[in-house]
Amino acid sequence: MSKPLVLYTARTPNGFKPSILLEELKAAYGVDYDFKKIDIGKNVQKEPWFIKLNPNGRIPTLVDHSRNDFSVFESAAILFYLEQHYDKEKKFIFDPATHPDDYSELLQWIFFAHGGVGPMQGQSNHFNRYAPEDIPYAKKRYIDETKRLYGVLEIRLKEREYLAGPGKGIYTIADINVFPWVRIHSFAGIESLDEWPGVKSWVERIEARPTVQEGLNVPPA
Amino acid sequence: MSKPLVLYTARTPNGFKPSILLEELKAAYGVDYDFKKIDIGKNVQKEPWFIKLNPNGRIPTLVDHSRNDFSVFESAAILFYLEQHYDKEKKFIFDPATHPDDYSELLQWIFFAHGGVGPMQGQSNHFNRYAPEDIPYAKKRYIDETKRLYGVLEIRLKEREYLAGPGKGIYTIADINVFPWVRIHSFAGIESLDEWPGVKSWVERIEARPTVQEGLNVPPA
Repeated sequence: MSKPLVLYTARTPNGFKPSILLEELKAAYGVDYDFKKIDIGKNVQKEPWFIKLNPNGRIPTLVDHSRNDFSVFESAAILFYLEQHYDKEKKFIFDPATHPDDYSELLQWIFFAHGGVGPMQGQSNHFNRYAPEDIPYAKKRYIDETKRLYGVLEIRLKEREYLAGPGKGIYTIADINVFPWVRIHSFAGIESLDEWPGVKSWVERIEARPTVQEGLNVPPA
Repeated sequence: MSKPLVLYTARTPNGFKPSILLEELKAAYGVDYDFKKIDIGKNVQKEPWFIKLNPNGRIPTLVDHSRNDFSVFESAAILFYLEQHYDKEKKFIFDPATHPDDYSELLQWIFFAHGGVGPMQGQSNHFNRYAPEDIPYAKKRYIDETKRLYGVLEIRLKEREYLAGPGKGIYTIADINVFPWVRIHSFAGIESLDEWPGVKSWVERIEARPTVQEGLNVPPA
């Protein structure tokens, strides 16, 4: 029998955000889900049936058959949806009613990543790997901007373990939302994280979680 | 006497998001605020005192002196902060507890704009206006992507008045979050919105609000 939660996804940083959280929720509460691999190389995500689920024609997209087939697009919006309905003890988020400042900081770092690290590192990937023309100005522009953004993460992480939360921070969707991008820095033309030791330790700390390794295997390579 | 809420801002689309919402909250509840113009042409936003408020060195940034000088960066995170603390009747957002699906749709459209329209239209501005080199490939890439994203908004707005909410939708921060970008489409190299009539009507509908006109005058030209 099919499971109520279905994640349409592919092996990209945005795809790994919800699969990592789903694995965390599976380990914490037994939340189960199916995934369907979308062949983005063949533009399956642009087919009419998919546009009905996600007008932007992108992965990841979540469908919840237990809630009237409600569909959710945008990776970060999927994280918030899963948190609201499947993380009853708020293990990976802060309750805005009781922890408004922690919640705001979590939002700030999520938007920072969603509007900065993701799109800019994505452009670096494009010009350094895929573009049909060799354009040194654009290659450098996006590598430089990605490095600048890593520097902003370093300001936050140099004395903390996680991006949001009191003390040294607590592992939340703020981390899950940007870790899959920073992890594949070399793909975007940034050879190592040595320049940002706090960021480097943070990546290693998150990568060491077995749940994260499970999430990074959805869909399997 | 200075006011508790201070918005550090400039006349950019991201700057207008919080000033529009602050004007809505002023009209609805009498919420008052000060703004300080940041001269981004002189990189004031990269000075050490500003980096303490916002490690990303960007406008807008909000400081709330009534809540222990709590500071908020990222335009969309500022909208959520203002909603939580200053929109007690939830006039411009949905209550996730009672309207979870409307709230999720609001989040989906906010992330769509924050990761798509904003960054891509910003790149179109760069290559079509500011870049020191003429790079036709990049000019076309970002105009085309911005147009594609407007097409996604059109799918949503062709039979609706606002992005999120039941029926034809309700004016919320989902609209406030992306309207300032679409409004200045011509700056990014898109001459008119005629290709997307739903989007065009939506821009006109929002522009007609006196509160929005007030917000677009912060700081004054």
